[in-house]
Amino acid sequence: MKLFIAGPEVFLPNARDLVAQKCELVRAAGFAPVSPFDPGVPDGLSGLELALAISANDERLIRESDLMIANLTPFRGVSADAGTVFELGFMCALERPVHGYSNIGAGFGQRTVDLFKGQVVLKGEGMYDAPDGTLIEEFGMADNLMIDGGILRRNGIFICRDVAPGDVMTNLDVFKTCLDKVAALHLG
Amino acid sequence: MKLFIAGPEVFLPNARDLVAQKCELVRAAGFAPVSPFDPGVPDGLSGLELALAISANDERLIRESDLMIANLTPFRGVSADAGTVFELGFMCALERPVHGYSNIGAGFGQRTVDLFKGQVVLKGEGMYDAPDGTLIEEFGMADNLMIDGGILRRNGIFICRDVAPGDVMTNLDVFKTCLDKVAALHLG
Repeated sequence: MKLFIAGPEVFLPNARDLVAQKCELVRAAGFAPVSPFDPGVPDGLSGLELALAISANDERLIRESDLMIANLTPFRGVSADAGTVFELGFMCALERPVHGYSNIGAGFGQRTVDLFKGQVVLKGEGMYDAPDGTLIEEFGMADNLMIDGGILRRNGIFICRDVAPGDVMTNLDVFKTCLDKVAALHLG
Repeated sequence: MKLFIAGPEVFLPNARDLVAQKCELVRAAGFAPVSPFDPGVPDGLSGLELALAISANDERLIRESDLMIANLTPFRGVSADAGTVFELGFMCALERPVHGYSNIGAGFGQRTVDLFKGQVVLKGEGMYDAPDGTLIEEFGMADNLMIDGGILRRNGIFICRDVAPGDVMTNLDVFKTCLDKVAALHLG
């Protein structure tokens, strides 16, 4: 089974090393790894052409994959990386197994309250509005309900756990735990 | 043709009014509007059950739609609302027409530089890394390349224009411009 590795690792300085490590773990677990760095983007492109070629290649690789593990660790904001979220939605529409993990344990509601530095409006027990009056989603989920819902309604695994603060983008422990459970589910 | 209206309006205090206005505009343009507020979520649910029911209903409504206009105005961060991005990816996998707009004119690269309050690392003309060494995407796009790429590679319309600062979440002018072009494309 081909397993697509989605996540914001692609933005890290050591992106290729880290993705290669994840591929090796996926292979050891018994899946064929697929990642955004797999060949398919023509040489010599730049700017818009390069971006469109990466987009096309990513979509093609996802279509060729049987399942996905998405790194949904919040990235530069309160939610997961937008590219990863797009890819998760894409795989959900294909109705193939989707699984996820996050290196942050705090839920979406708490993180959104934190984003507004606590300057929120209490509207019920544990329920808040943002200072601008917009709703703060609080369903006990890890991110927007389309993300958690997309995974959970497909009986996917979604593990969220704090790692050391300096290691949020690179720690692979939660990924490993998720991968073990995914392997038990699909190959066990 | 059924047109799904995706966007973070659902979080606004006047969400139902604003979505009703968008539905009316969509109807006037010649499409049948579909929105996340359309019936399908059972009464009497709360918490996780409610969230999963909304997720299931949203996915069903998107599957039943022929095309999408997504409000990709940045929401609580540098990228579009995570739920909207999920829905866009979902529609792209169905290979149906996707269109988008944003009430913010500045591009993704500039917004990301602004997120770090300019404390970024120059690495080439107009190219920067974040202070933590992560890549700042700069392809002249409005958001992550999977979002712009998903739309543009399907010949979709994606219009980004500044509106008055106090009106970013509610102004419908850019939506109207986008809708006119979408109608000309599909119904003209």
